[in-house]
Amino acid sequence: SSSPHNPKDSLIDHSEGQLFLSEAFKIILDEVLSKGTSIQQKVCEWKEPEELAELLDLELRAAGEPHHRLLERVRDVAKYSIKTSHPRFFNQQFAGVDYHSLAGRFLSEALNTNLYTYEAAPVFVLMENEVLKSLREQIGWTEGDGIFCPGGSTSNMYAMNLARFQLFPEVKSQGLCGLPRLAILTSSQSHYSVKKGAGFLGIGTDNIIAVNVNDGGCMIPEDLDEKIKLLKSQGAVPFVVSCTAGTTVQGAFDPLEPIADICEKHKIWMHVDAAWGGSVLFSKKHRHLLKGIERANSVAWNPHKLLLAGLQCSALLLQDTTGLLKRCHSANATYLFQQDKFYDVDLDIGDKSLQCSRKVDCLKLWLMWKAVGSSGLEERVNKAFVNAKYFLEEMKKRKGFHLLHEPEFLNICFWFKPPSLRGKEGNPDYQEKLAKVAPVIKERMVKKGNMMIGYQPLKNKVNFFRLVVLSPQVCQKDMDFCLDEIERLGNDL
Amino acid sequence: SSSPHNPKDSLIDHSEGQLFLSEAFKIILDEVLSKGTSIQQKVCEWKEPEELAELLDLELRAAGEPHHRLLERVRDVAKYSIKTSHPRFFNQQFAGVDYHSLAGRFLSEALNTNLYTYEAAPVFVLMENEVLKSLREQIGWTEGDGIFCPGGSTSNMYAMNLARFQLFPEVKSQGLCGLPRLAILTSSQSHYSVKKGAGFLGIGTDNIIAVNVNDGGCMIPEDLDEKIKLLKSQGAVPFVVSCTAGTTVQGAFDPLEPIADICEKHKIWMHVDAAWGGSVLFSKKHRHLLKGIERANSVAWNPHKLLLAGLQCSALLLQDTTGLLKRCHSANATYLFQQDKFYDVDLDIGDKSLQCSRKVDCLKLWLMWKAVGSSGLEERVNKAFVNAKYFLEEMKKRKGFHLLHEPEFLNICFWFKPPSLRGKEGNPDYQEKLAKVAPVIKERMVKKGNMMIGYQPLKNKVNFFRLVVLSPQVCQKDMDFCLDEIERLGNDL
Ligand SMILES: Cc1ncc(COP(=O)(O)O)c(C=O)c1O
Ligand SMILES: Cc1ncc(COP(=O)(O)O)c(C=O)c1O
Repeated sequence: SSSPHNPKDSLIDHSEGQLFLSEAFKIILDEVLSKGTSIQQKVCEWKEPEELAELLDLELRAAGEPHHRLLERVRDVAKYSIKTSHPRFFNQQFAGVDYHSLAGRFLSEALNTNLYTYEAAPVFVLMENEVLKSLREQIGWTEGDGIFCPGGSTSNMYAMNLARFQLFPEVKSQGLCGLPRLAILTSSQSHYSVKKGAGFLGIGTDNIIAVNVNDGGCMIPEDLDEKIKLLKSQGAVPFVVSCTAGTTVQGAFDPLEPIADICEKHKIWMHVDAAWGGSVLFSKKHRHLLKGIERANSVAWNPHKLLLAGLQCSALLLQDTTGLLKRCHSANATYLFQQDKFYDVDLDIGDKSLQCSRKVDCLKLWLMWKAVGSSGLEERVNKAFVNAKYFLEEMKKRKGFHLLHEPEFLNICFWFKPPSLRGKEGNPDYQEKLAKVAPVIKERMVKKGNMMIGYQPLKNKVNFFRLVVLSPQVCQKDMDFCLDEIERLGNDL
Repeated sequence: SSSPHNPKDSLIDHSEGQLFLSEAFKIILDEVLSKGTSIQQKVCEWKEPEELAELLDLELRAAGEPHHRLLERVRDVAKYSIKTSHPRFFNQQFAGVDYHSLAGRFLSEALNTNLYTYEAAPVFVLMENEVLKSLREQIGWTEGDGIFCPGGSTSNMYAMNLARFQLFPEVKSQGLCGLPRLAILTSSQSHYSVKKGAGFLGIGTDNIIAVNVNDGGCMIPEDLDEKIKLLKSQGAVPFVVSCTAGTTVQGAFDPLEPIADICEKHKIWMHVDAAWGGSVLFSKKHRHLLKGIERANSVAWNPHKLLLAGLQCSALLLQDTTGLLKRCHSANATYLFQQDKFYDVDLDIGDKSLQCSRKVDCLKLWLMWKAVGSSGLEERVNKAFVNAKYFLEEMKKRKGFHLLHEPEFLNICFWFKPPSLRGKEGNPDYQEKLAKVAPVIKERMVKKGNMMIGYQPLKNKVNFFRLVVLSPQVCQKDMDFCLDEIERLGNDL
């Protein structure tokens, strides 16, 4: 072929490019999907930042590099990255791999579609609508609206904006200046995106009123009611109650029925942050945990967590049928949303979003759902509960493991007390010493590399482990390993 | 292997899954990357929504489907989707495929990493820092800060939030209630995300003051200065000037030097929305278009547009070295950003973002940059300018094509006047008739399927075409085809 510098020609060599991609695909299969999911291999390969930076040779230079060098780089990136699909990765609220979803993700990337108009994304406009409809059906809604957002935090922020707009439509054009003090009610255990949203939306984090929770971390409805009354008596306008179905740390489900009664009584928008717990709706056995969710005005639900759809996949779902979402968010840009198109411009859903470019997040979920059906998704959710229960039972048989509270969900929060601390619960420095156990075990764990699990403090409770067991590829032997390993790493402390 | 219903076992069959993924990969290579980039094949396969919905059989059911059926679905999704990498896709501000970037995207998807902490994403924390640093160097900054955002709209909104926080740090906790009226200045041609942001942030779209532009669409600095003075005299607080380097429709570059002088004089945050034009910085020949960008406080830059990094890839870059980004956005969640970790917690960059889960958007850009070097990126930018110039010259040789204005950049805005309208410019119904030409040609084009180009009206200018020529795989023959095809489709109108 002729020189790439000839302006008549293309700068891209498709056959060379496809060869490279195929080679990279083989490395991905090998390093990430085979080795990366094998218990004979490590979850992580700890390196100090300086050493890792050197190994990776990150610097970007004027000259390009040959393919064999780039393939080494693909391998290095894979090698030193955390294997989030490894059966012993319990560190976050996502884990595991679904191959159908992954195929959908590769296809989305290759198509590089921007989901704003039917013209640009005919398949995905229809598909997103269908997926949103099916998610709403799980909630119990036959009608409604919704949109995929880049994460649950954004979904929660959208809900706050909608609640505000519903009450004060003029806020979109006039802003908050001149309005009374607006307030948000949410439990002290809700996700931090409520805080971030309050800052971003100009409401202010001080105007988040933290509703008390019980020991399990569930919102206390009576306290909610009182705090709403107090706010009103102060002349503030509580405009949204953000409940949580599955809190981040404890996995608590706020009692949605009584909260719905209170929201109804006070005419306040009820939002359910079901980013983590929403997927439980697939399980006939466990969906009672979300009883009352159908009374919410909005629901945020992340299939990228419990369902293994892969990052990012978060839906904001609405009961509204009046076009609130579009009215609240639209800017009517004429270069994109022309009104004189030859097809029904209601299909141009992009103006419902605050994004302009928007990735296709529905295909991976759709393909996975087609592959295993709602019944397959139910089976996975149930399996996660079975795993959690098994872990819990095994844990209770051992000395040194102490639960924070009986879990309702898949978050198991516990302390490991090394032998040296057992029976010393009354000592004045006991809490201080206990607080140091989890960080040291975590450090040893990461440096050894065969398991990952998170820890944190919570209010007056010092550092404890939070095991999140969710991946359907996790087996009982992985749970046993987890308990054994914590003992191995911490018994001498 | 034993029954998947045994609670002891994994529900995921890796070898079956990997086989499926490999089959899907072949289909992607074939349908999307080979056929989808061939001028022997169509750009789009138009179907009416009802027909398409039926063809795709979108409904999600209780039961799963066998692999061969799922592979048909992969093929169908590819078949009916728009081929955005086709050399005759000129419809948006992205096009074309880069295989190195695509390999990076597949790897990101397979790794399924969440970019919030060094613990969870060691490679990508370091890599994102390096890529941001290299982007800042193109601007001319040796220091600074930044973050990848899910699109340029979000990057622009972050900038607005930072500007507000810089001036009124108490806004984060106290909200806007009680503050004076805040105002945003931006040209009438700026991207609609400024509007969406003003609504979302509680500032209100009425508080966006549209600065006048010249014929080419560039902000008039004198008008900016006057409008700032007027706002101040009214007791409002203009807190950010959002300039545009490469406007969406006309591709105009606001004059950054004189704007920087005005911002400096009035002590107002200067943001440059370089989502579209930022990549021109790679070109020694053309970077003068952005002269003065180094004086900005913040820059939004989308490598997913002109650089072909693939959706989504947008960086917000800051000159700030005081940790403003983190102070403005942080929520200090203890379950994620523990302070007693065993490594330097400054590496836990996630709290700079308003997202919690955050996709890895840096790897694809990094791998592409490694592959072709800054010089290869420069070559691509220059090639796009050469293509645009060629198109312009060829267009001027033909009857019936009329420019809106001489372009500075890669957006070529023009009317096609069919023979029946030529010489009728004085007729009272001329504008009305001209307005109908582009939509009809577009409809015929999409239904024929071998090219896509957008149209829109702009203020008092009726519907015109906007050709965006950016993909380095576009050749002169594609430009010729575009002109020929418009004539073929519109000559009888
Ligand atoms: C209860 C809850 N809500 C919201 C979120 C935020 O979702 P995302 O990480 O997708 O922004 C999380 C994430 O951990 C969560 O646990
Ligand atoms: C000038 C300009 N700014 C911002 C954006 C928004 O970027 P994104 O589509 O990534 O949200 C665009 C998109 O077209 C644009 O042209």
